[in-house]
Amino acid sequence: MLIYIYMMAITAEAMSGALAAGRRNMDIFGVAVVAFLTALGGGTVRDILLGNYPVNWTQHPLYIYLVLGGGLVTIIIARVMRHLHQLFLVLDAIGLVAFTVIGCNVALGLDYEPIVVLMSGITTGIFGGILRDLMCNRMPQVLRHELYASVSLVVAILYLFMLDLGVGENVTLLAAFSLGLLLRMAAIRWHLSLPVFRYSQEQWD
Amino acid sequence: MLIYIYMMAITAEAMSGALAAGRRNMDIFGVAVVAFLTALGGGTVRDILLGNYPVNWTQHPLYIYLVLGGGLVTIIIARVMRHLHQLFLVLDAIGLVAFTVIGCNVALGLDYEPIVVLMSGITTGIFGGILRDLMCNRMPQVLRHELYASVSLVVAILYLFMLDLGVGENVTLLAAFSLGLLLRMAAIRWHLSLPVFRYSQEQWD
Amino acid sequence: MLIYIYMMAITAEAMSGALAAGRRNMDIFGVAVVAFLTALGGGTVRDILLGNYPVNWTQHPLYIYLVLGGGLVTIIIARVMRHLHQLFLVLDAIGLVAFTVIGCNVALGLDYEPIVVLMSGITTGIFGGILRDLMCNRMPQVLRHELYASVSLVVAILYLFMLDLGVGENVTLLAAFSLGLLLRMAAIRWHLSLPVFRYSQEQWD
Repeated sequence: MLIYIYMMAITAEAMSGALAAGRRNMDIFGVAVVAFLTALGGGTVRDILLGNYPVNWTQHPLYIYLVLGGGLVTIIIARVMRHLHQLFLVLDAIGLVAFTVIGCNVALGLDYEPIVVLMSGITTGIFGGILRDLMCNRMPQVLRHELYASVSLVVAILYLFMLDLGVGENVTLLAAFSLGLLLRMAAIRWHLSLPVFRYSQEQWD
Repeated sequence: MLIYIYMMAITAEAMSGALAAGRRNMDIFGVAVVAFLTALGGGTVRDILLGNYPVNWTQHPLYIYLVLGGGLVTIIIARVMRHLHQLFLVLDAIGLVAFTVIGCNVALGLDYEPIVVLMSGITTGIFGGILRDLMCNRMPQVLRHELYASVSLVVAILYLFMLDLGVGENVTLLAAFSLGLLLRMAAIRWHLSLPVFRYSQEQWD
Repeated sequence: MLIYIYMMAITAEAMSGALAAGRRNMDIFGVAVVAFLTALGGGTVRDILLGNYPVNWTQHPLYIYLVLGGGLVTIIIARVMRHLHQLFLVLDAIGLVAFTVIGCNVALGLDYEPIVVLMSGITTGIFGGILRDLMCNRMPQVLRHELYASVSLVVAILYLFMLDLGVGENVTLLAAFSLGLLLRMAAIRWHLSLPVFRYSQEQWD
């Protein structure tokens, strides 16, 4: 089940990455690169950080085809996609939760400390977007936007907490997706965001 | 043979990286860092992605000296280099093919899937340039320029295809270098490029 | 002893990273990410390059808490910190030397070549700052600033040289910190910097 959600999520993330590349007038190769990094970059950074070799996608050519295909199809259907705005926000939120839960599971399977498990979940959830923004030469949006990374954090904490309590996998997943989607949709609807740290002092370091 | 071409290629790439650093008024340390990343960064990213430890250059101090030396010499001979424009375009094209073929070979030796072998070749070919551009705080040129990354892709496909057909290593290499150089030179001469994806819709994700 | 200096250093680096994030108006999550990358990013890059798994901080939750705590506390005490300008320059210089020495030790323990040991020291010393600047979408300051990276290089060379001569660990450390602090303070006081490479030729590669 989680695997199908994951495949849908990486395809949606790849399409969102392709649109970001299109905003920078990249060529179709650049679109493919950014789509790939947006969708699979978070999991790649996680695998490298945790020493979880071989890196996940290298063992699943299907993921690679989904992501490259999603990116390239976006070029053709970009006109239509702007009418699917709402749908993509939901798919993106589902993807954020799925990535977070999978990232936690990978670190749990390697017996890392709880704090590292949390960081593994968040890294999987948000690093694809960070790599996308680096490639587009802009500041990572996830570091100053509406609740996004913090949704990943809350989901990861809930997930670990319920597993620790011995709640079954299915109930835990249902709770994680429900809370994550609810929070993310509320953040978008009411423009909820974390407090911002403004510091205007001239740089001295 | 390929090893000598490789050493010439990393030196040329280091010199091109040093010029990019000079355009940003970096100090000589910055020049060395950018020269290193431009020349050896692609192979480093490949080794880390594939779990191919120890990373190649850590076992070959000669490569490190070539690259740092090439970068620093560039500071002295920069004036002369502008007259060698044509030569450097050819060296860069040779380097692109050499990096691609070597990247494919590394993944083949580790029994990765064909699609991962292709990606390993392209990553080795283009990621040095991506890291150079990230250090210079500009959008990676390889994602929207004249045919460059796509030359790497075509070379990698030809190379795998001929090896699969059982053609000898030497003939295959000759074909890869011929096609790659021809394509790249044609791209430069006639400003060939891939179609660009333009998407101006305000961002919503 | 070195371990306590290290913990003080990562906390100070995290605080400096947090200020950089504040200059970009990041939210508190972004502050935590940039603080973490500034303080522990250099060691992470080193561990990944050298294949030194598990990555250091994944085994030391205390480091993670110090760094995240330091980053978040900075938000509260930012006003006060501007009066501690001088103190932070000293802490940063101590951190640079500590990171360099520790980076050398890690590579020595894995039997890498001397040139790789030097690079491991410098990478540990400067890559946190490079990652911080990438996240803030600006050119890495360390590549064109006052003597900073070069202090790391000089310290690493001295350290290896004295170990090679058979000088005791304590004397060697004392010498490394003395020389490093002296050089760095002199660089700040008299605005010493490396020669800059200026190259204005239009890009042709």
